[in-house]
Amino acid sequence: MKILVLNCGSSSLKYQLIDMSTEKVLCKGYFEKIGHYDSFVTHKVNGEKYKYDVIARDHGDAIKFVLKQFTDPKYPVISSLDEIDGIGHRVVHGGEQFGEAVIIDEEVKKGIEQAIKFAPLHNPAHLQGITACEKNLPGKPNIAVFDTAFHQTMEKEKYLYPIPYKYYEKYGVRKYGFHGTSHKYVSQRISAILNNPNLKIINCHIGQGASLCAIQNGISVDTTMGLTPLGGVAMGTRSGDLDPSVVTYLMEKENMNPSQMEEMLNKRSGLLALSGISEDNRDVERAIAQGDERAISSLKEYDFIIAQYIAKMAVSMNGVDVITFTAGVGEKGPISRAGICSHLTFMGVLLDEEKNKEARNCEAEISAPESKVKVWVVPTNEELMIAKETAELLKNQNI
Amino acid sequence: MKILVLNCGSSSLKYQLIDMSTEKVLCKGYFEKIGHYDSFVTHKVNGEKYKYDVIARDHGDAIKFVLKQFTDPKYPVISSLDEIDGIGHRVVHGGEQFGEAVIIDEEVKKGIEQAIKFAPLHNPAHLQGITACEKNLPGKPNIAVFDTAFHQTMEKEKYLYPIPYKYYEKYGVRKYGFHGTSHKYVSQRISAILNNPNLKIINCHIGQGASLCAIQNGISVDTTMGLTPLGGVAMGTRSGDLDPSVVTYLMEKENMNPSQMEEMLNKRSGLLALSGISEDNRDVERAIAQGDERAISSLKEYDFIIAQYIAKMAVSMNGVDVITFTAGVGEKGPISRAGICSHLTFMGVLLDEEKNKEARNCEAEISAPESKVKVWVVPTNEELMIAKETAELLKNQNI
Repeated sequence: MKILVLNCGSSSLKYQLIDMSTEKVLCKGYFEKIGHYDSFVTHKVNGEKYKYDVIARDHGDAIKFVLKQFTDPKYPVISSLDEIDGIGHRVVHGGEQFGEAVIIDEEVKKGIEQAIKFAPLHNPAHLQGITACEKNLPGKPNIAVFDTAFHQTMEKEKYLYPIPYKYYEKYGVRKYGFHGTSHKYVSQRISAILNNPNLKIINCHIGQGASLCAIQNGISVDTTMGLTPLGGVAMGTRSGDLDPSVVTYLMEKENMNPSQMEEMLNKRSGLLALSGISEDNRDVERAIAQGDERAISSLKEYDFIIAQYIAKMAVSMNGVDVITFTAGVGEKGPISRAGICSHLTFMGVLLDEEKNKEARNCEAEISAPESKVKVWVVPTNEELMIAKETAELLKNQNI
Repeated sequence: MKILVLNCGSSSLKYQLIDMSTEKVLCKGYFEKIGHYDSFVTHKVNGEKYKYDVIARDHGDAIKFVLKQFTDPKYPVISSLDEIDGIGHRVVHGGEQFGEAVIIDEEVKKGIEQAIKFAPLHNPAHLQGITACEKNLPGKPNIAVFDTAFHQTMEKEKYLYPIPYKYYEKYGVRKYGFHGTSHKYVSQRISAILNNPNLKIINCHIGQGASLCAIQNGISVDTTMGLTPLGGVAMGTRSGDLDPSVVTYLMEKENMNPSQMEEMLNKRSGLLALSGISEDNRDVERAIAQGDERAISSLKEYDFIIAQYIAKMAVSMNGVDVITFTAGVGEKGPISRAGICSHLTFMGVLLDEEKNKEARNCEAEISAPESKVKVWVVPTNEELMIAKETAELLKNQNI
């Protein structure tokens, strides 16, 4: 079975073609600046990289070009597009309607449309990608895999905000949570590695976006992100949770409207605001190496906030067996991992300094043997997870 | 030394006259509806209660009437107002200027005025009370005791928000924290009781307003409230911290301006919103006793949120020796105390059920002997703390 995985952003398209019998990525690539005059794609086959300037007016143009590459005699990976068994689409927001991956039909498209209000940049792009696939791969099943679906197992006491109930009834304002595909993948991997399906896991997905998830017996019981991916811990450029009077106070003082405020909190806050240098931990770490006081202080706060949310997630399960780190900073950031864990020795978290330093981009235990809580680095693989969910759904449906 | 303690609200005045040699309250009372045609005062002396309808156009009128009672032959507590050595004023917000209690002069009044922007209901009332005392008790020293002062020991990494730094520089937007007088009082009491000044204490001040404070070696290292008393845990009618996109999303949808949003989050949120019944735990508990599903769920969430913030405070100190409960719910709410602590057994918190049930309005240990973390109920006494700080300042100044 061969699955095409698509992740459509507002002006981008990431794709992987995966052979499910071996879980091998046959080819993959990244289309950027779709809708702009200078759009281009980077296509990777057999370890080689090919860059093309291709005018793509929309996601349809982009997908058409990408599909052509799969059978191009220059670097063919399949002999015909018919070999593709299904397309798995990453969809950021599924609202309350979708608790698992689904085969896309008109009703599902309506559901994705309804959730546009919570993901105004992402969901419209996903719909464009779906339409383009329906047109260019007619008859092939399209599957939606939602970032929110994994968290639909949260109890009401975890997802309701302490604000008037009518806003939940009227608009669906509640905690949804994101990165579900990554949290699911990593928690399944660590359960397999430790050969124990009944763990209390806290997965720390820390990249430019960051969320933590409390997973008990394979199920999401709590997570840090909320209505949108702005909530929870501080991130590269996002503030995370706040005293809401900070929001109203600044809107009043600076005469900002809601969307200007959202933009500030999404794009000019987080580590970027604290450091005054960059949203990228690596840049901040370079400044720290040069003794920059504000950089030191900013990373201290960033790490400290994540540690506080790890403790919050532990409360959600009344304990924790394993903490996993994943995504950009989680996989490649020994300095932040050490900084975060240094606040948690009271919970029985003890890192092995050497193992932590060495662990980059690979599955590795980084806690000391005497640590009560195990700590692991587990690289995430959202594309593979999407492909797996897609394949499984197709098998069950006998498609 | 006799100290008059005043707590002026926007239309109210609470007072206590305390003899510092015995710490005895000579008389106390509560003036309500100041500025309204139906203002009245309840005055208490020697266990007797006297209610008077008195027209008080402003805090000046109210204070004048109250002072007259102190020497009234009907129930005299002092023979002359000259016996009053100083007046301690509770001031909600001291901004960054005040890290301790101060004798009030023109500059201090300016400072209190500058912080009106963060406490628009409270600080103007405090200034009115101060002016009234200057007029009616001429020559007597007035001392300001700030709710924020105790938290001025927090490090920058704890009080800066991950939003652009210019908002801190321009407006002083940062975490201030409140209930400082209560956190200081309770932490000093528990240190005295346990005869140990070097404890890691988490004080849970849970009343209609609620905040938690991490106190290490007698010093506030972190707290849950923020720029204003809206932040942190969910409270009777306040939301606490939120994913800020909830705020901007609802403002957009409901066409609310910042002050309408603030009003909703301050007055119609929290336990009231979750339960749909009341902001008062006792009402919610009554509904729970009758099997009301939503009431059960609301108190579960309320307790759970407080437990999560206890864990956050533990991270701030990398551990905790004692958890103290104080204020309305903290002192009289065994059900919530048990609910909160039930989430924290992984941290070594174990209540003694019987002791917890019995402890109401008195200092009492409520943890089991084998509990790693001690848990105590310690009734707060902000008035006594204000009187003590006032007396100490006067002694040091040789006034």
